[in-house]
Amino acid sequence: MQFSALQIATIVNGKVEGDPDVRVSNIAKIEEAGEGALSFIANPKYEEHLYSTQASILIINENLQVERPVKPTLIRVADAYSGFALLMEKYNYILSRQKGLKKGIQQPSYISTSAILGEDVYIGAFSYIGENVIIGNNVKIYPGTYLGDNVVVNDDAIFYAGVKVYHDCLVGHRVVIHAGSVIGSDGFGFAPQADGNYKKVPQIGNVILEDDVEIGANTTIDRATMGSTIIRKGVKLDNLIQIAHNVEIGENTVIAAQTGVSGSTKIGRNCVVGGQVGMVGHIQIADGTRINAQSGISKSVNEQNAALNGTPAFDYKSSLKSQAIFRNLPELDRRIKELEALVRQFMAEKERL
Amino acid sequence: MQFSALQIATIVNGKVEGDPDVRVSNIAKIEEAGEGALSFIANPKYEEHLYSTQASILIINENLQVERPVKPTLIRVADAYSGFALLMEKYNYILSRQKGLKKGIQQPSYISTSAILGEDVYIGAFSYIGENVIIGNNVKIYPGTYLGDNVVVNDDAIFYAGVKVYHDCLVGHRVVIHAGSVIGSDGFGFAPQADGNYKKVPQIGNVILEDDVEIGANTTIDRATMGSTIIRKGVKLDNLIQIAHNVEIGENTVIAAQTGVSGSTKIGRNCVVGGQVGMVGHIQIADGTRINAQSGISKSVNEQNAALNGTPAFDYKSSLKSQAIFRNLPELDRRIKELEALVRQFMAEKERL
Amino acid sequence: MQFSALQIATIVNGKVEGDPDVRVSNIAKIEEAGEGALSFIANPKYEEHLYSTQASILIINENLQVERPVKPTLIRVADAYSGFALLMEKYNYILSRQKGLKKGIQQPSYISTSAILGEDVYIGAFSYIGENVIIGNNVKIYPGTYLGDNVVVNDDAIFYAGVKVYHDCLVGHRVVIHAGSVIGSDGFGFAPQADGNYKKVPQIGNVILEDDVEIGANTTIDRATMGSTIIRKGVKLDNLIQIAHNVEIGENTVIAAQTGVSGSTKIGRNCVVGGQVGMVGHIQIADGTRINAQSGISKSVNEQNAALNGTPAFDYKSSLKSQAIFRNLPELDRRIKELEALVRQFMAEKERL
Repeated sequence: MQFSALQIATIVNGKVEGDPDVRVSNIAKIEEAGEGALSFIANPKYEEHLYSTQASILIINENLQVERPVKPTLIRVADAYSGFALLMEKYNYILSRQKGLKKGIQQPSYISTSAILGEDVYIGAFSYIGENVIIGNNVKIYPGTYLGDNVVVNDDAIFYAGVKVYHDCLVGHRVVIHAGSVIGSDGFGFAPQADGNYKKVPQIGNVILEDDVEIGANTTIDRATMGSTIIRKGVKLDNLIQIAHNVEIGENTVIAAQTGVSGSTKIGRNCVVGGQVGMVGHIQIADGTRINAQSGISKSVNEQNAALNGTPAFDYKSSLKSQAIFRNLPELDRRIKELEALVRQFMAEKERL
Repeated sequence: MQFSALQIATIVNGKVEGDPDVRVSNIAKIEEAGEGALSFIANPKYEEHLYSTQASILIINENLQVERPVKPTLIRVADAYSGFALLMEKYNYILSRQKGLKKGIQQPSYISTSAILGEDVYIGAFSYIGENVIIGNNVKIYPGTYLGDNVVVNDDAIFYAGVKVYHDCLVGHRVVIHAGSVIGSDGFGFAPQADGNYKKVPQIGNVILEDDVEIGANTTIDRATMGSTIIRKGVKLDNLIQIAHNVEIGENTVIAAQTGVSGSTKIGRNCVVGGQVGMVGHIQIADGTRINAQSGISKSVNEQNAALNGTPAFDYKSSLKSQAIFRNLPELDRRIKELEALVRQFMAEKERL
Repeated sequence: MQFSALQIATIVNGKVEGDPDVRVSNIAKIEEAGEGALSFIANPKYEEHLYSTQASILIINENLQVERPVKPTLIRVADAYSGFALLMEKYNYILSRQKGLKKGIQQPSYISTSAILGEDVYIGAFSYIGENVIIGNNVKIYPGTYLGDNVVVNDDAIFYAGVKVYHDCLVGHRVVIHAGSVIGSDGFGFAPQADGNYKKVPQIGNVILEDDVEIGANTTIDRATMGSTIIRKGVKLDNLIQIAHNVEIGENTVIAAQTGVSGSTKIGRNCVVGGQVGMVGHIQIADGTRINAQSGISKSVNEQNAALNGTPAFDYKSSLKSQAIFRNLPELDRRIKELEALVRQFMAEKERL
């Protein structure tokens, strides 16, 4: 397959600078793109490649300043990353058409007689579909997936290999869950007893994943003690994340890998949470909050669109200042010692007078 | 099913305040409980709901002060969380009776001819039972579980979907392991060689999970290099926890999600460890130690019942003071600069004299 | 099986001190080793056991000073840990010979008709081998493993139970992957849209695991957006690690459990990274870098063989000094207040003059 700069500009709704007839046959990272390849620059860190790349076509942001001649034909769009995403989507679609999409029911698989399957589903070998499970149209269930009793899955959802969904959980339209993730395991609820033992609190709630949620690999989302742990529409969770019982995550919030959210905490919509962040339980995080990687959130965030950093976290910019001085604490200590010596000297002189 | 306040008070051994004949047909969180629902208040954060809730019955701590009239019938118990746990357990038991418990051997499954199975076991489809495995009575093995050769499982244990237990590991009575957890993977032992390569140290030990241990989803517990990694009676581990080779965790210790314990470290009994804590290897943690979330434990804790926080961790209360000053480091720096300027001025004036 | 000190010294190329004819029949940790057991001391923390151990044979470092008589026959080698590793390897080899190695294809398993299998492979029950998969000789695939379409596996690789490898990934010779790990899941790439939604960026790259890589349990390695996420020859990754899309890890680098590396970051060779470390995306880490546990790496490390600690990380030794002063911040604050009081007093006196 070959595409011209003009064809690509039409797909991404961009403006061509340079030869509109130049053609590409593959896609590559900017550092590796050679003759005949299409690439993109979205992150300023990669602008240095602009003048040296051998790519034939480059998608760039419309406001990127080009000060010297460049080899590739440029296609300017409002947002190069989104433009590229759109192109990849089309490309991927064509590719999957060529390769043949997964369809049908592979054997051996276990489908309980009370389960209801939609049209055009794929059920991979060694998948287990429990009692009363309802599966919508065009759902793809890769091999080794487990759907417990009474799970409901809406149209166009995808479960990659070895996903486990416990009984009674609900999965929205177009939800994607990557391999090894666990949805609906018991919340961590144990009541301490007088003799030092713990009594398990049965976890009778469930998990609701709303439409367009995407969940990475080996992430765990616990079922609610009562009611539901809820992941709202459009939320994106990365790999190895822990979501505890009764948590709610608002629409279009994204969370990077290895972050953990403790029980009953409510995160607002349009938040951006870095990797390895920890949040205590029973707090509220306002809409639009941005939390830097490795932060520890120990209390509610009430103001919208705040940026936070550190453990315990506070205002992002202030925390950077504190961190900078932390590095110089030995120097601070030395300055205080010097002051103390001088002041002691004054004192001694004063005595003598 | 409907239960009266009197019936519930009898189950939880509580004292009724209000109409003993009011009846409930469901259980709900305090924020969501309506007419006909039973709920509870254990955490002081939720006491604000006491006067506004529409719940019909409320389980509360016996010492909770009620200062104005409330809608629900109250049931006072020594510990509301434990009382509620007890009630849920009964409720869950009735529910599971109604739904029908999992039993029998689903096909296809793989059970080696040398394996020995107890009575009333459930073995889900796609489960693998290795050579010489011994399984006790009433054990439940959900679909896709893997038990390697020579694994021994005692009565009433539960393995949720996709648990993997390597060869030679021992599982106690009533142990519960949630989906995707891995027990007995190789310890991380590699000897550095002169040429920069690493030589793997074979890991010939095993893992022992004693009675009443519960393990969350996608947690990993490595086998010992030699001897055993041991999780003692009643220990509760949350999701995504890492336990390295030759670790020992004492009775009734609980550890929250995403914490990691390095090789050969011994944790005492009745400890409470927060989430995302890290511990270095080859140290001892005394009985009753409490460790705050995200702390880093870099040396042994010798004193019992200590509370620790921070990286590296020290006394909890002191660490809060240091953290408070950390936030104000820029202000501290400014004060020192001011002192320096004043002292310089004194010095200059003294010269002039 | 019994071995004499002389036989063992021959295997590990060591020097015997004591009775060369003493025999052992088992291997044990130094704390637990009794009569008839072989053990070793590599870590100075365990040297205290030298004079009290009941072991019959002990492998020690050649420069370990022995100042009093000891019970066991000693075998001195250049590096006790490597010597012990070598011995365990031989022992393990003999053991596995006795037990019978896993071989052949267990049923039920799913092997696509287009897959090509090498000689002497083991394919466990419930394993799934996709279209066009190529598997080398002596490869071991434990039960419940998933290899997506077009995966290529070289000779002598081992996949433990429930490993998931997505389509198009490449696995080198002698690679070992522990249970539950996921290789080739989608990178976390979503382009924010004007309306607050996110558009998924298709991830069309793959993952390459070069020869002699070992990966722990429940670790996740995402496929590249384009090109490859690359784990170079001899890299060792522990459990529950997150490697994002387009990351590269250099030869013989080792990373401890629960560490996360963000997208497009390049780590050099022979690095040693502790547990629970986080690295931001798009940075370079020089060869030989050593990073302490729980550190946060926020920018590139250009100097080779640096040692780093803290969040954000800086020079290891300096960071220890800052951490020490952090503990005493309340005291520092008190000293500043004292200085301020004294200086105020001077000022007042000066006014009065």
